[in-house]
Amino acid sequence: MYRPEIKILDCTIRDGGLMNNWEFDKAMVKEVFQGLVDAGIDYVELGYRADKKQFSPKDHGPWRFCDEKDLRDVAFESDTKISVMLDVGRTDYDAFLPASESIVSMFRVATYAKDVDKAIHLGKHVQDMGYEVCVNIMAASHVLEPDLDEALAQLADTDFEAVYLVDSFGYFYSEQIHYLSDKYINGLGGKTVGIHCHNNQQLAFSNTVEGIIKGINFVDGSIYGMGRAAGNCTTELLLGFLKNPKYDVRPVLGLIEKYFESLKQDLKWGYEPPYLITGVLNKHPRTALAYMKSVGAGDCDPDIVKFYNEHVEVETVD
Amino acid sequence: MYRPEIKILDCTIRDGGLMNNWEFDKAMVKEVFQGLVDAGIDYVELGYRADKKQFSPKDHGPWRFCDEKDLRDVAFESDTKISVMLDVGRTDYDAFLPASESIVSMFRVATYAKDVDKAIHLGKHVQDMGYEVCVNIMAASHVLEPDLDEALAQLADTDFEAVYLVDSFGYFYSEQIHYLSDKYINGLGGKTVGIHCHNNQQLAFSNTVEGIIKGINFVDGSIYGMGRAAGNCTTELLLGFLKNPKYDVRPVLGLIEKYFESLKQDLKWGYEPPYLITGVLNKHPRTALAYMKSVGAGDCDPDIVKFYNEHVEVETVD
Repeated sequence: MYRPEIKILDCTIRDGGLMNNWEFDKAMVKEVFQGLVDAGIDYVELGYRADKKQFSPKDHGPWRFCDEKDLRDVAFESDTKISVMLDVGRTDYDAFLPASESIVSMFRVATYAKDVDKAIHLGKHVQDMGYEVCVNIMAASHVLEPDLDEALAQLADTDFEAVYLVDSFGYFYSEQIHYLSDKYINGLGGKTVGIHCHNNQQLAFSNTVEGIIKGINFVDGSIYGMGRAAGNCTTELLLGFLKNPKYDVRPVLGLIEKYFESLKQDLKWGYEPPYLITGVLNKHPRTALAYMKSVGAGDCDPDIVKFYNEHVEVETVD
Repeated sequence: MYRPEIKILDCTIRDGGLMNNWEFDKAMVKEVFQGLVDAGIDYVELGYRADKKQFSPKDHGPWRFCDEKDLRDVAFESDTKISVMLDVGRTDYDAFLPASESIVSMFRVATYAKDVDKAIHLGKHVQDMGYEVCVNIMAASHVLEPDLDEALAQLADTDFEAVYLVDSFGYFYSEQIHYLSDKYINGLGGKTVGIHCHNNQQLAFSNTVEGIIKGINFVDGSIYGMGRAAGNCTTELLLGFLKNPKYDVRPVLGLIEKYFESLKQDLKWGYEPPYLITGVLNKHPRTALAYMKSVGAGDCDPDIVKFYNEHVEVETVD
């Protein structure tokens, strides 16, 4: 697949940080950034800019905050742009330099559909400072269709660069991705549409490809799939699939071998039965993460069938 | 997805045996079979029936041969049928009881397209003894289109029950699966079509779903994806996706936790960079298997970029 408009955003440090509290050391992040530049990646997302009044820097690694100084210690200006994510309600409006003084090119505002007004407000704030703005509507599989349509219509009226279809729970398969891709592309009036998938059902890469086939041009990947719970579409699979000659998978393969194989052993992201269960049932992975953690620590009696039954039983509400 | 014609064939012991020389102990295979019966699986493939004049029983586990006695030690007659695979050129024509005396319901003949005449000959031999017959055309991504069309036409003229589309190298993605599914379904004149996928690009499940959407009704899975190299579509994903009320994922989840998580640690099937590389390049995984084995034994200098370069370089032939 070669369409020059397609851009890869690597979110290894940002989404992967959800698994290690953003405690990547700087030497490693520096190598990761260099490798992604060498691979021809279009955007590298290095973390969140969380409000330090809400989250103490003592309790989290530096990529939870992405101070300009920390970013400049690991990254440099090049054809690969730098992205930082902002959570609605967790962002200090005073924490931004003007874009001309910043190494950051784009802020991505993560929001639930119900908070889209807040997301637009925050997005305009950083857009006014000169940044590109993208909005990620999280958990699309939990949004009622009229609410989603309204959110898309509101975003269509902004000057933001892009809006993402996000399968936070790893619930969708191809036919749903086709339906939603059409909805986003048609509902956003020509705005660039992106896709961010989770791998609970081993569908993160295939759903991303289905989005591309439907016209989505902004695709998220992470190295070796590192990300919350079942993780993401892998960057190396995207680099293998997309035929743009500027891409080169080799630097990413080297990073996997040097860093990410052992990280995965420790942190246990990726396809595992508890993540499969929450994905199939269209639920947040927090219970699955807790289960995986308890298994790792050996302080529980692992019983995946019990875990499954508990998740099916809570469905019988009225 | 619920279409009553869809049948799941679990090939854990057969394809998984390629990773451990079929050295599963009988107590375990017995539990696996019982679990798959409890899960409502339609066919369980318990191994190959290899020619003992070519392969010594001393050098391989019992599921390389699937003697009737061994099968009866682990399995029983029920709504779940038993399948055994036959390799063209590696099968003793005298190694079959009449179907009425056998616990086996179906033999699947694995063949390359070029050997389809031999496959038909072998298939007719076992069909004449009363068995269902299925033919798996291996390595469809390496077959020239006229040769594939001819093979399908010849198979259309048989009374065999089913023919499989097999992505041996984990090379295909959805658009190719759509194209080939149409070709198989149209070319086989109403015969049941099956699909067997490998997971080199994390597309085994999604490609199986795409086949189902196109009308394929026989789908292969294995528990936790156990199978050669990158492994297969997982049985638990199929059970989560297919809505036939007779299916129950619980017994398979239990088997994963009891047996297959530790087996995977030891045997290292599943998505890994060397398998990704052979998959993207449409090559047999044998070099990737050797690489993974050498990394495991610690007797080599692992270098995945070197591995990649070697595989790209041998492409420059004339």
